[in-house]
Amino acid sequence: MKLDELAAFSDSETPAVTRVVFSDTDLRARRWLKGRMREAGLDVREDAAGNTFGRWVGSGEGVVGTGSHIDAIPNSGRFDGTVGVLGGLEAIRELQRDGFRPRRSIELLMFTSEEPTRFGIGCLGSRLLSGSLNASAADELKDADGATLASVRAQAGFNGSLESVRLEAGYYSAFVELHIEQGPLLEKSGTPIGIVENIAAPASLRITITGQGGHAGAVLMPQRHDAFLGACEIALGVERAALATGSVDTVATTGVCRVFPGAVNSIPSGATLEIDVRDIELARRDAVLRAIEECCARVAERRGLKVEPTALNADPPAACDPVVIQALEHACGARGLGFQRMISRAYHDSLFMARIAPVGMLFIPCREGVSHRPDEFASAEDIANGVAVLASALAELAG
Amino acid sequence: MKLDELAAFSDSETPAVTRVVFSDTDLRARRWLKGRMREAGLDVREDAAGNTFGRWVGSGEGVVGTGSHIDAIPNSGRFDGTVGVLGGLEAIRELQRDGFRPRRSIELLMFTSEEPTRFGIGCLGSRLLSGSLNASAADELKDADGATLASVRAQAGFNGSLESVRLEAGYYSAFVELHIEQGPLLEKSGTPIGIVENIAAPASLRITITGQGGHAGAVLMPQRHDAFLGACEIALGVERAALATGSVDTVATTGVCRVFPGAVNSIPSGATLEIDVRDIELARRDAVLRAIEECCARVAERRGLKVEPTALNADPPAACDPVVIQALEHACGARGLGFQRMISRAYHDSLFMARIAPVGMLFIPCREGVSHRPDEFASAEDIANGVAVLASALAELAG
Repeated sequence: MKLDELAAFSDSETPAVTRVVFSDTDLRARRWLKGRMREAGLDVREDAAGNTFGRWVGSGEGVVGTGSHIDAIPNSGRFDGTVGVLGGLEAIRELQRDGFRPRRSIELLMFTSEEPTRFGIGCLGSRLLSGSLNASAADELKDADGATLASVRAQAGFNGSLESVRLEAGYYSAFVELHIEQGPLLEKSGTPIGIVENIAAPASLRITITGQGGHAGAVLMPQRHDAFLGACEIALGVERAALATGSVDTVATTGVCRVFPGAVNSIPSGATLEIDVRDIELARRDAVLRAIEECCARVAERRGLKVEPTALNADPPAACDPVVIQALEHACGARGLGFQRMISRAYHDSLFMARIAPVGMLFIPCREGVSHRPDEFASAEDIANGVAVLASALAELAG
Repeated sequence: MKLDELAAFSDSETPAVTRVVFSDTDLRARRWLKGRMREAGLDVREDAAGNTFGRWVGSGEGVVGTGSHIDAIPNSGRFDGTVGVLGGLEAIRELQRDGFRPRRSIELLMFTSEEPTRFGIGCLGSRLLSGSLNASAADELKDADGATLASVRAQAGFNGSLESVRLEAGYYSAFVELHIEQGPLLEKSGTPIGIVENIAAPASLRITITGQGGHAGAVLMPQRHDAFLGACEIALGVERAALATGSVDTVATTGVCRVFPGAVNSIPSGATLEIDVRDIELARRDAVLRAIEECCARVAERRGLKVEPTALNADPPAACDPVVIQALEHACGARGLGFQRMISRAYHDSLFMARIAPVGMLFIPCREGVSHRPDEFASAEDIANGVAVLASALAELAG
């Protein structure tokens, strides 16, 4: 495992990792990864979206996939995603060292832009692979500088139509993703492996609030239509809506707030919020979204603001495949490792891969459930356990 | 008047103006202004802070000053400050055309960084001129990129010690600033000229909020310490504190909010607010500041956050000088223009110049009181009236 080497490709200081898709740093990390794939004798190919495949060619028909992502949100850690990519590579090398000969090919997959940092939508690569996102709409996605995905990927050397990215259903006979839990349950129960049964349903929305700016000294309080104060009430309303379901499985987060013009002596004329709502029950999640929209309407009326919520995405949950789950359970048994079945609360590329392939996910513990932070941590032992189980499961599925 | 020409030096699209101190655009605007000063036969000098002086040398002793600033906050208008600089120049040209010969020199002054945009503190130039800001502390002020004022001004060509900037008390026998009202009163009452009696007392503070980040999908609501939600409660508390005084003269604004790390799927671990509080009564303003600090403490306790308020400045109000006020009243009489005495609610360099000189300010109407916005507007007629009154007052004070 070369997590340290990969973590060195970062735009923030150690231990923090920042690796935004198609940044120079991301491109250097990709070159490094392709080098490691080739060292392991894998056939490397990239598609027009920058999804990167490394195939260990089997003796027969069919392909079993494994992998995850290497992009990292600003100031995050070194385990999210990368454990599934480098761990997948390590599982392949372990099987190679053991003299295993796959019948089905085993393909390591590094997905483009699982994180929504740059283009505002997560799982870009797996959405395109699974036909879950229109190719031309994807090319028109813009980053904060107004650059389109089409231009950014072309500049990064990924040409060709995004139409070509989509895989036919059945391309993979199974797809397995290894990941840190990003939650506290495995650590708390002292269980080395989590086998995911369902991936929770995430939805995100952007709320644009328009008020009236003006000089902070001159416009009296009753005459104001302060967009940021409206944004504050909405963000607190988001929290209230999540708490109101009464279920600990509902979470809602306002992770982005931009204030315009953003000067200490200027009343905010505009504000933008980006909100993430997740639940394992679709109906409950949608009720939270409705409560947020109602809050927006109330704030707009009371403060004389224009409040425009836009759904960025609202993906349905996915179930993991019984055959893949069984292969993971067998693998735990073979390795003498305890496991528990669980829910994934975080977004994963497997959510979209489930639309074109039988998928499974296995989790390993991470310290205090912390993720998306510089102090994100998984122990070498826990990673080795995950790699071992992944290797055995791949062997069964490809065998 | 060449307001259009000056407005063309902008980092945002017309009609919006963005001209941040010592940006390339600001430096080009300064060169243009010095050219206009020289065309009018003024002796131009610049100090180590970039304050720019253009002197019409008189036949005798003493100096009467006039001027304002040309820096502009992001996405603002073309009248704030610039009317006082170009209007001062125009008043001088009018006196020159009329064959007036000043006894005291008349000096046009363009102050550096009246706006706090870049270094977080307003009236940088006039604070230094009046000895209201320690020179070495000023040089250590940092912009958002971490660059110190010392390095930024050196790069802009302003070398030498900031100690040298300070003017001795008595350097100016009078200082008069022409400005748009930035409020609605003159327009409402149909009065062409406002003569300022007092400049309100502004205070600003920065509040740094530290919580715990984490993955938006994985950390359950009850375990969160979301820094942005704390910031929202504080910003709403700021509004409440201003309203609670029961006086329309109290205003409080949260104009800046930065969220860290700022990703849709990441719980905010940090947030920074910048807050501006003004009142014409010092005691009432200080009561608002106390209420904000109490709000910070409550939010910190309830949400398990670290909340650190830092005073950026808390300047006392200033009174205008009776002799200068009288000269302005005479000037209105001579020009046949009505006037009303009034309060300045906005920050002005005259607030600091009042510490070393008898000051006066005259206001002209601006449309709907709007300022710090692209649609800020003062009519050519109103500007001409202001210039005429300024010219007559300068003639009396320098005569």
